[in-house]
Order: sequence, then C-alpha cells, then structure tokens
Amino acid sequence: DAHKILVLAGDGIGPEVMREVARIVQWLSAHRGLKLEIKEELVGASSLAVHGVPIRDEVIELAKQSDAVFFGSVGDPAWSHVAFDKRPEVAILKLRKELELFANLRPAQLFDALLDASALKPEVVRGLDIMIVRETVGGIYFGEPRGIETLPDGSKKGINTEVYTTSEIERVARVAFDLARKRDNRVCSVEKSNVMESGLLWKEVITDLHKRDYADVQLTHMLADNCAMQLVRDPKQFDVIVTGNLFGDLLSDLASMLTGSLGMLPSATLGVERADGKRNALYEPIHGSAPDIAGKGIANPLAQILSFAMLLRYSLNRSEDAELIEKAVSNVLTSGLRTADIMSDGMARVGTEMMGQSVLRE
Amino acid sequence: DAHKILVLAGDGIGPEVMREVARIVQWLSAHRGLKLEIKEELVGASSLAVHGVPIRDEVIELAKQSDAVFFGSVGDPAWSHVAFDKRPEVAILKLRKELELFANLRPAQLFDALLDASALKPEVVRGLDIMIVRETVGGIYFGEPRGIETLPDGSKKGINTEVYTTSEIERVARVAFDLARKRDNRVCSVEKSNVMESGLLWKEVITDLHKRDYADVQLTHMLADNCAMQLVRDPKQFDVIVTGNLFGDLLSDLASMLTGSLGMLPSATLGVERADGKRNALYEPIHGSAPDIAGKGIANPLAQILSFAMLLRYSLNRSEDAELIEKAVSNVLTSGLRTADIMSDGMARVGTEMMGQSVLRE
Ligand SMILES: CC(C)[C@H](C(=O)O)[C@@H](O)C(=O)O
Ligand SMILES: CC(C)[C@H](C(=O)O)[C@@H](O)C(=O)O
Repeated sequence: DAHKILVLAGDGIGPEVMREVARIVQWLSAHRGLKLEIKEELVGASSLAVHGVPIRDEVIELAKQSDAVFFGSVGDPAWSHVAFDKRPEVAILKLRKELELFANLRPAQLFDALLDASALKPEVVRGLDIMIVRETVGGIYFGEPRGIETLPDGSKKGINTEVYTTSEIERVARVAFDLARKRDNRVCSVEKSNVMESGLLWKEVITDLHKRDYADVQLTHMLADNCAMQLVRDPKQFDVIVTGNLFGDLLSDLASMLTGSLGMLPSATLGVERADGKRNALYEPIHGSAPDIAGKGIANPLAQILSFAMLLRYSLNRSEDAELIEKAVSNVLTSGLRTADIMSDGMARVGTEMMGQSVLRE
Repeated sequence: DAHKILVLAGDGIGPEVMREVARIVQWLSAHRGLKLEIKEELVGASSLAVHGVPIRDEVIELAKQSDAVFFGSVGDPAWSHVAFDKRPEVAILKLRKELELFANLRPAQLFDALLDASALKPEVVRGLDIMIVRETVGGIYFGEPRGIETLPDGSKKGINTEVYTTSEIERVARVAFDLARKRDNRVCSVEKSNVMESGLLWKEVITDLHKRDYADVQLTHMLADNCAMQLVRDPKQFDVIVTGNLFGDLLSDLASMLTGSLGMLPSATLGVERADGKRNALYEPIHGSAPDIAGKGIANPLAQILSFAMLLRYSLNRSEDAELIEKAVSNVLTSGLRTADIMSDGMARVGTEMMGQSVLRE
C-alpha cells in the first residue's frame, strides 16, 4: 500500500529546495520500492495569492488523512500588511494546532565537515549534539484573549495570553524524557519560573512527572535567560532541552545557528495518536522561506532533504532509506561541495540543483 | 549638597562585590570631593530572612526619595519554594514598577583585553558594541490576569498576560532613538509580530514614531527568533536594539555573553521625570547573584564598579569621575589581572578583593 504524503512547499525558497527532494523520491521509488501517494497543495503567501487564505480547510482535512505532511516554509514580506489572521504564517500555526502537533523536535547538530562555518570557536562546538523539544500548540502562540484594542483616547493596547495546563506540559515532557533515554539520558527544562506563573507550573509539573515515571533520567531546570547565555558559553553541557512554544522558538533558532549549519537542520513535529493508531506528523527544515535569496538557485536544499529522511524514519518506518540519504549528504559535504550559506575557504561553491544532484549521485 | 544614594546589595555575591565599590566611594570622597549620603537596606533573600518580605514598603519609599538606587543582585535557590509573590526576585521587579523604571540600558561591549574569553571567534566579536534597550515595567512580567488555577479535574492551568500600550512602547522607543543619535544612528526593533498582536502593535507604534520624530535614524525590524540567531551569526550588524521585557531578558543576556565578559557589564534603568525634575534611576550589574560562587571571594567586582561609574555619569553628572573609574578598570585588565570568570592563559588570577584594590590603586 502506498503511503499518503501531503507536500506543502510554501513560499520563498520552499519550492526550490522541494524540487531536489522530488528527485530523491523518484530514485527511491525506482530503486528501493518506495511507494508514495503524493498530493501537493499551496500554503502561505502562495495560497493567499490564489485562494485568499493562507491555508484552505480542505488542505487541513487532507493533512489529517495523510501519513505525513512534508512542509517547506512560509512567510513573505509582501504579505506582512494583510490582516493578522491572514498572514502566511497562519498556515503552519493552523496545521500544528488542527493536527495537534504538539512536540517539535529540533536537533542542533554540528556536521564536522562544517566546523568552519560556525561563529563559535571550534573547541566550543566540536561534536555538538543537542535536541530541543519545543511545545508547539500551546503557550502565548494560541492563548486567549488576544488582539489589539483601541482605547478611549485613540491609543491602542496589544494583548496576548500565555496559557499552559498540566496535561499540555506532561505530554511534551514525556516526549523529551523518552528521547533522552535513547541519547545521553539528560533533560534540561527551561522556563522563567521566577517571573511567570505559567513557568512555575511548567517546572512543577515536570518535576512531579520526573519523580513518578522518569527518575532514571537526569533532570535539571534552567531559567530561559540563563539558557540563552549557556547555549553560547558552553552548549555541549546540554543533551535534551524541553521548553514552551515561545522560548523554544528563540532557543532552537539560537542553538541551530551555533552549528553554523542552519541550512542543514531538519525538524519533526509529532502529534497525538489518532483513531487509526498512527500519529500525525509534520516534517520541515528549521530555516525559513528566505525571501532575500528566493529564485536565485542558491538556497541550500540539505535541510529539506534531511527532513525527508526524518519522515522516512519516523512516519514510514524506513530507517534504511533514511540512512542512505544521511550518508549521501555527509559524503557530499566531505567531498567539499558547499552552497553559499555554508561556504568556506577551499571548498567548491554550488547552487541548489547541483547540491541536490550530488546527493542523488551518492 | 550630598547626593542621596540607596544601596541595595542583595543576595549571593551582591554584598561581596559591593564592598569593592565602597572603597572606591571612600577614595572619591577623600580626593575628589564626592559627597554621598548613603543608606543601605536589605533586599531579596536577605530581606526575606529578616523581614519576611523581599522588599519592605519603606525601602521602596526611600528609593523614590533617592537620587539613585545602586543595586547588587537578588535570587537564592533556598527561597525558590516560597509563595510566588514572596520570592527574592520580587524586590527588583517591584523597584522597577514602583519607580516606573521603564528603560533598561544594557551595553554589550567587548573589552579588547578580554577577546580570549569569548566563545565566539575573534573576527566575529572584535570591537563589538551593542546597546540593548529593554522595556522593563510592562509586557508579560506585569500583565493581568496571571496566576495558577486549579481545574475541576484537579489539574492546573498557569496564566500570564502580555500587554503593551501605545504610550509604553513610544517612551521606550524614544530612549532608543535618542541613544542611537549619539552612537551609530541605527535602531533595530525586535518583536514577534508574525505571531503576537502585542508584537504587531509594537512594530506599528515604532514605525509611526520613527516617521514622525526620528526619520534621521535608520530603523529596521527583526523577529525575535531571527535576532537570537543574528546575534550569534554576526553581532556587529547591530547598533541599538529596542525590545520588550521578555525578549529583552533573553537577548540582552545572550548579547552580553557574546563578549565573554558577563562579569564586566553594567546596566542602568531609567524612569520618567519626577516632580522635582530629576529622574528615578537604578544601576546594577547584568550578572545575577551567582549563589554557586557566593562567599568564596572569587566573584568579579568589575560590573558592579562599572555600574557605579554609570551612576556617576547619568545621575550625578560627574563624567570625569566616571571616566577615572573606567580608565582604571581598563588599565587593570591590560596589566593582566583576571578573576576566574574571565581567566585565560598567561594572566594573573585574582580574587574579588584583589581586583577591587587594583582598580583603586589605578
Ligand atoms: C513561521 C513562524 C510562525 C514559526 C514560529 O514562530 O513558530 C517559525 O519561526 C518556526 O519556528 O517554526
Ligand atoms: C531577577 C529577574 C527577575 C530579572 C528579570 O528577569 O528581569 C533578571 O533576569 C534581569 O534580567 O534583570
């Protein structure tokens, strides 16, 4: 039976890097018996342009019926002035919420061949391997009340609400603890419990859960401001970090930039179990739509390619194919090929297509 | 007439590093005619231990009547389990709020002599000089409703509210624009306007104010997650950054860690004009109470000393004295003295007192 995959390339460099994955899918179908039933739909600014909404309800429905959603990126400065609930970013936020994709797994891993690309000293980042587990359907991203009110004197007031409940915190913490057991067995929970009650609850719930079900895992707590500092001072102190939606947004971007390989890093967002026993899941690169370089053929397709490897492993149970891809990427990097974003002296600069082709050849 | 200074040393290393400033004050009184009327009070865990509250109302009153508040640091793990409104951190939060200290100025400056201490490559941070202007009396730190509710099923819900109004945004933006004019004339405003309406308002208000009163300053906008990345990738692209309370907390700690000199960085928090024409102001190091090294005599007193220099310059109009101190600090560093936090090869390691004495000698 064919696996149902919904492909949402999105905006900016999304479609360009997606094309390189398509070639790999063709190869896997021809040579490794991969059977995919692929549907493609517009999201983000591309959907706004055609349908007037960042994502149609039909697309959400389709996503719910798929085995996995393979996502590019959304966001376009041209649409930054539309009504708040029509901006391109709503597409990914809605997908996360409607499919209850609550745990975003963001590895920050240094590829040894790319040590030069990091802004940090080699001894600080060599061998870096952090996994950030970010909650993605709660917190200030979705809490009510929210909006902009006009006050009697004509001035305005902007409001957002951070909300976290015991069960929301527990389920994402479980993902983090389970992952840690397969890694270095350490979880650092990050919040701002000295200022925010939602952070205090976060800390308490994770402390209790740890005592109850995960006492074998080492648990530490860290304030978010300190975590931002520690990620720069000594990132290798971390194994798994678990945190809320907003802190996770900043800290995971920060952590991936430490590696100098933002264009390399994939992510997976996992949902709750469905009625059919499967789990909703969405795979996307950590980088955004990069409108400044879109259409120039210079974007790095590796994060999108590696996101597909994650999809093969986690949603389709095809670890061997995933490893084939990961090995090919690693060989290409070792051979010295680089897109502009990870360029350094003595390497060969290539564009999006050439990089994709080279992975394919491997 | 003597200047009224309220000294609040606080917890952890606060009192230790404060002692080194006291020696400098004595010297300035004896040799430079500085006249201070100093009052000292307990805050944070030290106040909790004696008075049962993190800061007494009398101390707030005293602060309001002072020309400046000179603050150490608060926070103590032993008090992390007290009721939320009794934790040590309430002391600084209450001072900011009650004295309406809305603009926290946090320089992230690299001292050339300390280039080795940074985790970043020398070419990335050499000459770094950023000023972060953080809003400190609004946002999610103070918004209502807030708290932890128990739900019918016994589970809990933690709530915090982010609120920003036009006038709160404008006044802190003015401080940023005014500072930029004395520096490299560039302001980067940071929010999360693609997800939060309060961020959208932030962006709109600053855009309008810029058009109206500061068109000569270069204004850019950046999303907070991108800013966290850009601070690591290429921090020298920034001049002045202006942002809200929560993002400012993370980003300013991150920025100061880039310099490798967290123990070196002072900060000033300025309030609105008072009835007597003066401005409330509070000066404190960026670092925290560092309970892990408290009482060991190894803390770096330079951030506290440099905070006093800021106090002399901004609140007492004594720039010459401020420069004397800054020059002395710079000479001591050039001579090779280092406390443990900024230690590198070939330098002489000294404790808190020795470092303080050395500055005094200079
Ligand atoms: C596009 C945007 C809404 C999104 C977020 O803030 O979550 C992005 O920054 C991310 O991290 O996936
Ligand atoms: C102590 C704490 C409440 C405070 C804050 O979060 O503002 C501190 O981290 C700071 O940045 O001054």
